[in-house]
Amino acid sequence: MRRVLVTGASGFVGRAVLDALARGDTEVVALSRRPPSRESRPRLDWRAVDMLDAPALRRAVAEVGCDTCIHLAWDVGPGYWTSPANLDWLAAGATLLRAFREAGGTRFVGAGTCAEHDWTGIGDAALREDAARRPATLYGAAKAALWDVAASYAAGTGLEAAWGVVFHAIGPGERAGRLLPSIVASLDAGQEARCTAGTQVQDPIDVRDLGAAFARLAASPLQGRVNLGRGAPESVAGIARRVAARCGRPDLLRLGALPARAGEPARLVPDLARMRDELGFVPCHDLEDSIAAAIDWQRAQGAER
Amino acid sequence: MRRVLVTGASGFVGRAVLDALARGDTEVVALSRRPPSRESRPRLDWRAVDMLDAPALRRAVAEVGCDTCIHLAWDVGPGYWTSPANLDWLAAGATLLRAFREAGGTRFVGAGTCAEHDWTGIGDAALREDAARRPATLYGAAKAALWDVAASYAAGTGLEAAWGVVFHAIGPGERAGRLLPSIVASLDAGQEARCTAGTQVQDPIDVRDLGAAFARLAASPLQGRVNLGRGAPESVAGIARRVAARCGRPDLLRLGALPARAGEPARLVPDLARMRDELGFVPCHDLEDSIAAAIDWQRAQGAER
Repeated sequence: MRRVLVTGASGFVGRAVLDALARGDTEVVALSRRPPSRESRPRLDWRAVDMLDAPALRRAVAEVGCDTCIHLAWDVGPGYWTSPANLDWLAAGATLLRAFREAGGTRFVGAGTCAEHDWTGIGDAALREDAARRPATLYGAAKAALWDVAASYAAGTGLEAAWGVVFHAIGPGERAGRLLPSIVASLDAGQEARCTAGTQVQDPIDVRDLGAAFARLAASPLQGRVNLGRGAPESVAGIARRVAARCGRPDLLRLGALPARAGEPARLVPDLARMRDELGFVPCHDLEDSIAAAIDWQRAQGAER
Repeated sequence: MRRVLVTGASGFVGRAVLDALARGDTEVVALSRRPPSRESRPRLDWRAVDMLDAPALRRAVAEVGCDTCIHLAWDVGPGYWTSPANLDWLAAGATLLRAFREAGGTRFVGAGTCAEHDWTGIGDAALREDAARRPATLYGAAKAALWDVAASYAAGTGLEAAWGVVFHAIGPGERAGRLLPSIVASLDAGQEARCTAGTQVQDPIDVRDLGAAFARLAASPLQGRVNLGRGAPESVAGIARRVAARCGRPDLLRLGALPARAGEPARLVPDLARMRDELGFVPCHDLEDSIAAAIDWQRAQGAER
């Protein structure tokens, strides 16, 4: 039986990966600072480890003896695009790579980002995995740096390495302050939801599909960068309108009330040929489903408090 | 007065940087695992720190309160091209960057390498700083990764960052086992010095000039990558012949006795326009001088033992 180490297991994507792994024939060890979720996970071996404490990380990785690692841990709190914590997470990732390999690990799967790529001059093209990389942010630079050394270290040591490149994700479990949760919070409080014009087009994948994609990538022999997306691009304004409609308060949505963020391309969507043809993965949730599940989850959280 | 933190101060390049800084109006704090040299350095504030111990590194950097950092520390012992220690040194560099900036540091200068670049298809061209990067080794990948995050972090925080890109260095203080010291050791013992054919052309800078170049780069406002070299390319065989001649035993040199290393380009020399025109730096040691000083140093070391 495969034994999979999941870092960042308590995060938005991490919880979805645990769900996906729980459906398969896999032993899972979850590393995170917080418990991975409030739901009960009877088969889960959860370890509390601060990955930024290198000796503790090395000890934990050596102890758990996993053959596969899905590395999701990163700081993606407010301001994460430029946070100096990106440097710490690069360091932690480099430490993890070596510790995992030297503990006998054979397959390493990490989470990449569209922010690794050059966002200028994209035009209408979907970004392929081999598109030019030139990160505009420290977040993108640190993720790109970790993948570069992972690929090089893997090539030199026989480790298999794959990088699931996430463009945008949506669905149950997103943290407060991100687009969908903040619209829902405003509308449910009977307040205006002030947004940018949202003309930019994205392809947010349902986080439950994203979890399944990472689980599948971990179980497959595929190496290198693999874009992950839904394959149904939509403008941010279109998503916001659907959220407002589903909340029953389209009247409170204020598109264009906030200035657009500088540097965001008009269209930022992944080319999914590798995901479909080589990974053989097809997302099963449509956008309405993602939005409905996200709203239900958020309201359930509110009801518990 | 500027206050400069030098990491890797006990290394081949580090000692030369300390010598160069000692000639200027600068306070120097040296970090290294070993004392920086056996010579007395009365004005030097030397701290023993294991940079791979992140909390210790953070404490030391916060304590010393330097405005400038020259970061040279790295593992370049035998096998360093593929050593997993490259991952640890990437982590240490990322930790250093943040600690230095948050302790009030304003200028960061690091040591890059020609191994960051794509070595295929170079032909006869000198490599410019903006030549394509595609490291073939983990050493090159880790150095490239550190520079990428340094440049991004610097751009976002107002830190000045420069990267002195070393192609090859020669001169007093090189560790045993490298080309020149091993030829000298063999010939001085009256034994054959077995070498590759050495047809590849390089441009090794004298380490004393390299130290001066790093000191100048630290004192200048120049940012970005700056190639460092002598500007007098020579084949490895030509260098070996000069070494053997200077040792008085050209008869014991066996060029072609060892197979060539795979993947080394026929010509790997830096374009030095930025060094000359923007840094305003001109090396002062010629190759004969470098070889003579290296041999003298090595024999003096032997005599001390």
